[in-house]
Amino acid sequence: MENTTKKTNGGIIGVLLRGAGQVMFQNNAWTGLFFLAGIFYGAVSGGTPLVAWGALLGLVVSTMTGYLLGLPETDGNQGLWGFNGILVGCAFPTFLGNTLYVWLALVLCAALTTWVRAGFNNILTLWRINSLTFPFVFCTWVFLFAARAMHELPAIHMSTPTLMSHFESIGHMSAGEVAEYWLRGISQVFLIDSWISGAIFMVGLLISSGWAAVWAGIGSALAMLVALAMKVSGYDIANGLYGFSAVLTAIALATIFYKPGLGSAIWAIVGIMVTVFIQAAMNVHLQTWGLPTLTGPFCITAWLFLLPMLKLDHRKIPDHSNWHKTNKTHLKN
Amino acid sequence: MENTTKKTNGGIIGVLLRGAGQVMFQNNAWTGLFFLAGIFYGAVSGGTPLVAWGALLGLVVSTMTGYLLGLPETDGNQGLWGFNGILVGCAFPTFLGNTLYVWLALVLCAALTTWVRAGFNNILTLWRINSLTFPFVFCTWVFLFAARAMHELPAIHMSTPTLMSHFESIGHMSAGEVAEYWLRGISQVFLIDSWISGAIFMVGLLISSGWAAVWAGIGSALAMLVALAMKVSGYDIANGLYGFSAVLTAIALATIFYKPGLGSAIWAIVGIMVTVFIQAAMNVHLQTWGLPTLTGPFCITAWLFLLPMLKLDHRKIPDHSNWHKTNKTHLKN
Amino acid sequence: MENTTKKTNGGIIGVLLRGAGQVMFQNNAWTGLFFLAGIFYGAVSGGTPLVAWGALLGLVVSTMTGYLLGLPETDGNQGLWGFNGILVGCAFPTFLGNTLYVWLALVLCAALTTWVRAGFNNILTLWRINSLTFPFVFCTWVFLFAARAMHELPAIHMSTPTLMSHFESIGHMSAGEVAEYWLRGISQVFLIDSWISGAIFMVGLLISSGWAAVWAGIGSALAMLVALAMKVSGYDIANGLYGFSAVLTAIALATIFYKPGLGSAIWAIVGIMVTVFIQAAMNVHLQTWGLPTLTGPFCITAWLFLLPMLKLDHRKIPDHSNWHKTNKTHLKN
Repeated sequence: MENTTKKTNGGIIGVLLRGAGQVMFQNNAWTGLFFLAGIFYGAVSGGTPLVAWGALLGLVVSTMTGYLLGLPETDGNQGLWGFNGILVGCAFPTFLGNTLYVWLALVLCAALTTWVRAGFNNILTLWRINSLTFPFVFCTWVFLFAARAMHELPAIHMSTPTLMSHFESIGHMSAGEVAEYWLRGISQVFLIDSWISGAIFMVGLLISSGWAAVWAGIGSALAMLVALAMKVSGYDIANGLYGFSAVLTAIALATIFYKPGLGSAIWAIVGIMVTVFIQAAMNVHLQTWGLPTLTGPFCITAWLFLLPMLKLDHRKIPDHSNWHKTNKTHLKN
Repeated sequence: MENTTKKTNGGIIGVLLRGAGQVMFQNNAWTGLFFLAGIFYGAVSGGTPLVAWGALLGLVVSTMTGYLLGLPETDGNQGLWGFNGILVGCAFPTFLGNTLYVWLALVLCAALTTWVRAGFNNILTLWRINSLTFPFVFCTWVFLFAARAMHELPAIHMSTPTLMSHFESIGHMSAGEVAEYWLRGISQVFLIDSWISGAIFMVGLLISSGWAAVWAGIGSALAMLVALAMKVSGYDIANGLYGFSAVLTAIALATIFYKPGLGSAIWAIVGIMVTVFIQAAMNVHLQTWGLPTLTGPFCITAWLFLLPMLKLDHRKIPDHSNWHKTNKTHLKN
Repeated sequence: MENTTKKTNGGIIGVLLRGAGQVMFQNNAWTGLFFLAGIFYGAVSGGTPLVAWGALLGLVVSTMTGYLLGLPETDGNQGLWGFNGILVGCAFPTFLGNTLYVWLALVLCAALTTWVRAGFNNILTLWRINSLTFPFVFCTWVFLFAARAMHELPAIHMSTPTLMSHFESIGHMSAGEVAEYWLRGISQVFLIDSWISGAIFMVGLLISSGWAAVWAGIGSALAMLVALAMKVSGYDIANGLYGFSAVLTAIALATIFYKPGLGSAIWAIVGIMVTVFIQAAMNVHLQTWGLPTLTGPFCITAWLFLLPMLKLDHRKIPDHSNWHKTNKTHLKN
């Protein structure tokens, strides 16, 4: 019922915009519009407008793929075909050069996420968990790894593969810098490095859910705090690279998968802290190939915090494999 | 019924030959005989006759292990105990030196594939997929990794571990070279680098299934085309190293797991293209340890193209976990 | 019934001591006491007393976490919340420096193992297998990887990341050295490098189960033999680094998961041999980041030897997911 209504809300444009919104779990076209606006602002102002066009292309291709394959439209209407594709579209121009084959590969990769998502969900549904953004992470990793073996996918914006690197932790920060890095942690969810984009994303979240915005803010702030305390690379903190996965962990654990309350709040706070260590661990691991973690740390942390709950009390746990259907309604339960 | 008949077809010799045939999904002793012939031709003419003897030993050991462990004979009679073992037997002399312990390790590894296959299938049967050649891949990886820490497993034919290597893509190719590289893509399924062996394998396929031969040809050709377009290493193309996994993907998706038709043909073509990127990605990943991908890219691609279909229409999907029982009969459905 | 009785046996002290005992599958507080004694002896005599205090802290934290999360107390009473935590506590001071944040991270990591174990068991219970010590392995890997990106987790006792290292195999050994290395293989289960600690651990095992002690001895001895034959690094053999995973494989396969007899004995012997190759393979793999394998090789080997048995005869297989409940009783079946 709700889904049918949603479909009429904006037709295919609505479907696409909700695909942008679902990157942060928001089944809301206006939120998606703000997310797209933030991407375009950040990409254009940062001198990399192709990132925004890539995002748009990835969003359209992955959504169309769902229709082509005849996957269940209740998924598509809620934007669940689009959120992996838009992230693929942000990632390709961010890490690769601008050749025809890069764009063809982007199309193949974005399409791939749609059926890989169906496959991963078929696996994970046995434990009532969801593949989250892992189809994006997995498929993009394949192409970024492959880029180092293909001259037509020039890996010119990826870091150099090394075994270990010296790094300097951050020194003194002004209040302005703190706020800037904090908002960059949010903008990096879409691989955008701009505090203004981060602020636009926050507005988008607020339209859909005040709690989601609050927890996105807590996620980025607490992750920055832990990362500072542990003395990680200052460059990574300044660019929000410890924030984006924690933002998603925070929204997911505090507002989507558990009934909001004191318990889920504590759980989310621990989850944010663990995300920072998993982020650091994956940074070190993938440095061997100069590869970015993408939102992998979020996926792993979320699973680690969802799986153990399965048996505690089945009656209290919403069916995670269908979180997209319940994320608007379980608050009333 | 059919299985009982098969058993009487050649007794233990038939079981072993069908084990060779199953590497390319052919439950056919004559096909297996041609495959063995191709291996012997390629190994002897290439100056590495031990590869052929290794293949024979691995085939016998893994098949005997199935009988010893009392695994279901319906599997064994169709050659499903042998195909991983024969590949182990090809791989060990290809990558390692010739010491007594290498041969003992080959025996242990070939035997291991038989129960690892039973274990992996126990896992994957929940999603109605099969472990394919992954038991060979996994077990051989263990020993090839270990070889770098064991002087008695001399890793003398493996490439040097490096973080990143410069590579040159291929220049102009004559028609003769194209045909040669194309057939090498097929011969490399058995780790043989000989276009004549590739031709012998094609004859073996033709005996069992015309469509399997056609799709093996398409797989190697299309993979070479994509690899050329993306400008991968010329050395790899010339030696068929982008072909072998694509050949298996092509046969699997177009003729074994889906009802042959336009849909499965398109699906197989996309699968072949994706295999090339996964092959490149795994090449880069494993270069860190100088390790070969073996048929890993095929396994991963096949799973990515089988898993999503589970829910599309259960009635149209043969039970993948038993593909070996249906690959002769589902055409009639 | 049994569980209730256990609870009264020593209250929380009993729960903690059984947590130490369960590292080697012994639901026995006296065994745990000897294990702790061996840890304290080895740590203090080796000049690293913090390892012992870390072990104690990890044991307490992970056990308390189980109560806090309200996990089933039948698990906790048998020590199943403690065995991962005590290993975390041994590992942190062994590999990292002594800063406040290392100890805070130890607390977080030890707590994490308790719910990660619940999560992993939720996954593995579908195949009736158990997560074994993998929660310890996984969580500790996260923090040791992260340590290379965090100045406050100084990775000062970890080896240097390298792609490949030259190594020298061992020369002549006196009988005394053989005995010493053999017992070190047992002490390394707790990351302790002391043959006397190994002897104390053996006494602890004997108190609980003669067969467990016998198989621990066979595991360390046979693994050393295979490692010597394959000419692995002499340093690793002398420090028992090929023994500890094999010890656990031996106890698990020969005395816990299968009904003891000729069949399980042969199975355990093959398992011990395979553990050596998986140990070497993981050593090579993780050397890229200078990371220890921890008990990962044991977990992987045990799964490879448990999974295939699922279908052989369901009636003969105890429910592995509950091995802790049956390890005292299935002998009577």
